[in-house]
Amino acid sequence: MRNIFFALSFLIVISSCNNVNSAKQLVETVNKTDSTTIKKIFDTALTNGQSYQWLEVLSNDIGGRLSGSAEAQQAVEWGEKLMTDLNFDKVWLQPVMVPHWARGEKEVAYFTSNNEKFDVAICALGGSVPTSKDGVLGEVIEVQGLEEAEQLGEKLRGKIVFFNRPFDDTLIHTFRAYGGCVDQRGGGARVVGKFGALGAIVRSMTHSIDDFPHTGAMGYGDIPENEKIPTAAISTKAANLLSEKLKENPSLKFYFKQSCETLPDAPSFNVIGEITGSEFPEKYITVGGHLDSWDLGDGAHDDGAGIVQSMEVLRLLKLNNIQPKHTIRAVLFMNEENGLRGGRKYAEEAKNNNENHIAALESDSGGFTPRGFTFDANSENYDLFMSWKPLFAPYGLHDIEKGGSGADIGPLKSETISLFGYRPDSQRYFDYHHAATDTFDKVNKRELELGAASMTSLVYLLDTYLN
Amino acid sequence: MRNIFFALSFLIVISSCNNVNSAKQLVETVNKTDSTTIKKIFDTALTNGQSYQWLEVLSNDIGGRLSGSAEAQQAVEWGEKLMTDLNFDKVWLQPVMVPHWARGEKEVAYFTSNNEKFDVAICALGGSVPTSKDGVLGEVIEVQGLEEAEQLGEKLRGKIVFFNRPFDDTLIHTFRAYGGCVDQRGGGARVVGKFGALGAIVRSMTHSIDDFPHTGAMGYGDIPENEKIPTAAISTKAANLLSEKLKENPSLKFYFKQSCETLPDAPSFNVIGEITGSEFPEKYITVGGHLDSWDLGDGAHDDGAGIVQSMEVLRLLKLNNIQPKHTIRAVLFMNEENGLRGGRKYAEEAKNNNENHIAALESDSGGFTPRGFTFDANSENYDLFMSWKPLFAPYGLHDIEKGGSGADIGPLKSETISLFGYRPDSQRYFDYHHAATDTFDKVNKRELELGAASMTSLVYLLDTYLN
Repeated sequence: MRNIFFALSFLIVISSCNNVNSAKQLVETVNKTDSTTIKKIFDTALTNGQSYQWLEVLSNDIGGRLSGSAEAQQAVEWGEKLMTDLNFDKVWLQPVMVPHWARGEKEVAYFTSNNEKFDVAICALGGSVPTSKDGVLGEVIEVQGLEEAEQLGEKLRGKIVFFNRPFDDTLIHTFRAYGGCVDQRGGGARVVGKFGALGAIVRSMTHSIDDFPHTGAMGYGDIPENEKIPTAAISTKAANLLSEKLKENPSLKFYFKQSCETLPDAPSFNVIGEITGSEFPEKYITVGGHLDSWDLGDGAHDDGAGIVQSMEVLRLLKLNNIQPKHTIRAVLFMNEENGLRGGRKYAEEAKNNNENHIAALESDSGGFTPRGFTFDANSENYDLFMSWKPLFAPYGLHDIEKGGSGADIGPLKSETISLFGYRPDSQRYFDYHHAATDTFDKVNKRELELGAASMTSLVYLLDTYLN
Repeated sequence: MRNIFFALSFLIVISSCNNVNSAKQLVETVNKTDSTTIKKIFDTALTNGQSYQWLEVLSNDIGGRLSGSAEAQQAVEWGEKLMTDLNFDKVWLQPVMVPHWARGEKEVAYFTSNNEKFDVAICALGGSVPTSKDGVLGEVIEVQGLEEAEQLGEKLRGKIVFFNRPFDDTLIHTFRAYGGCVDQRGGGARVVGKFGALGAIVRSMTHSIDDFPHTGAMGYGDIPENEKIPTAAISTKAANLLSEKLKENPSLKFYFKQSCETLPDAPSFNVIGEITGSEFPEKYITVGGHLDSWDLGDGAHDDGAGIVQSMEVLRLLKLNNIQPKHTIRAVLFMNEENGLRGGRKYAEEAKNNNENHIAALESDSGGFTPRGFTFDANSENYDLFMSWKPLFAPYGLHDIEKGGSGADIGPLKSETISLFGYRPDSQRYFDYHHAATDTFDKVNKRELELGAASMTSLVYLLDTYLN
């Protein structure tokens, strides 16, 4: 099977060969060179990697770095200095204005039922308006999703709406379970605000049953100011308790208070470093993650991992004396979490500058053991990409298939670019995602380094075989 | 490819078919039935699993359970009660005498160099003799392995030998790195005792650079009593420090004290539960792990995970109304860590009772995300087992290949039995293995449950297709 795939991917080369045997020989030679190079990349990543040490600084010394915060600015300066110290050919900051939402004081929430008070763990969702200073108190209506809420319509007036559809545990890939629930977080408040609901409480986006609420972005769309109601995530343990108690007492009262606010947009930056291509300097391969994170944890997995892996890709190329033909860029995108301004700005500037971006790779699924890559690309490259499967198999990457890439590189999409998403094992990701538990100690050094090596190997192959 | 493999595995069935089309049809029907059953197994494991809750009790309420300890006996009683409560067709205890080694007081170790004292973290290796009450003090000779120690010979007299060969980080599968180092732990003291060394200090068997020493079994073979010297594992951080300081000052002095002892063999048990086969009750498929653990942590990954997964296999079969044709046994083996008496006893009794064991599966590589199975079997079943790859692929198990199985089921090996080892992701295993860090909080619920489902699916297929 390997030879068939390789033959497909080297049609041009092979067509100049005199006979089938010499074509085969050529294919095997190229294959062996690639295997050897990839082995070197993995060896250096695992014995002389820097990504874990960098992540320790980003996570523990800087910490959570929400767009517009002082920590986000520190992260920008840290990234710029680090890539400068690594002697990349160019390092610069690309200015971008970002939303600036701040959580304010720690949220308070509880409910009372039959004279018993239950404190519950919540956190404001990113972009939410605050409650009044006295908080919000009301009866609760539990729903399983936006559609049910829409159908209840006016019945929601004066109520707190509790979106409680859980993750589908039977889905093996946890991102599918997330995809099946996250509309409640993103749109819950928007949908029920127009019916006069007082607030929206959303079950945390996780499989794990624990007491950590998971924040994340929400949006009001274009609804009028007076319909914007406060919204918060509730921990899964508290959500289960609330649901249980609601069955016993549907008129129990829920209270919550949050003091978050949206400040004026703030100046920030994408941080960019590049190795200039030796043959096609005007053609770009971008590898990136997002530098901003939520504020509850230190953003080690989301997306400190992607940030340090992206810089490590360029470092590992240099360390292995791989001089890329194309210009390779590491981009630390700002504001993926609550605006995507960095991703949009990067694509906009690429267009303004007539840059020819041939491929991009994003790591934004945590720093776990590699399982593969998904790609969103022109069908003419399908066989080429699939032909690389045998090169990745020895490192445990078997899932090389069509799929999404990443939010930050999405705006680069065109007829010609090949977009890739790095796909590590997904089982633990939503234990930590957007919660206080997303901290450096949850990252395993080897898993992170194997990811960086996998990404470097893909960039090496893209540089070698794309034109 | 799938059809070819399936065709191979159903030669007998197919040969009775009238033509190729009907054979193909049959193969596809069977394949679909298997896919559907396996999907049901995974669904129930992930939505209605019990393994994680059981592991919490075993880890947190009972804890570390070294052979011969009171905790090991508690674990026996817990396992017996649990399987009885699950209404397995038979549940019983199989008596076995086990070694009884006890750690005694917490070990003490430090070294002094240029009047500076460095405390270091060590733990006695299982089976080691104690030091004298005053401890052992001596100069240190660092070696990279048994061979180097043998060559030094008489130069080791009066010295403490420091075995410091580290894991090879370039090996992707961490068990290979372990395999490349563990001879130092198992045989270090035995080899250098005969040259009059005072003690053997062995670098902990882990990739991780931290301050947790990792214990594990060692053996003196048949050397005379007076050549048996005390031996301990040292944390990797301390090993690196000691090695560094030895370069500055080769005559620095190392001190350690440990009060471990080997008590008389103690009575214990393998715990066995079974579902009696409907067609071939006299033919057995065994699934197991080991109930004993080291004493420093609570043995959640090693091998609490394998224990709860093995019992969950039988529960998931029952829950899905799968009535096995063969008798399926869950065996909680005693004393894998420092004697293998349970595994040997089980095989011995199987032989005494003329039991026909057709297959066995062991889970003893931690409760991490499934990657596959290795098998040690008669070549005539190779194509059958490989034909199952497409059935496991949707669940991320791609590594189905020849290899080892497990220590406890090893003694069952014969011409006819097929032995399997469950292979989860290996990256984090040696962070915790035999150390104080092997605790319940390191286990992810879904990863553990996916493992139980994978094992149940394999047992289902073995029961369906083996005779």
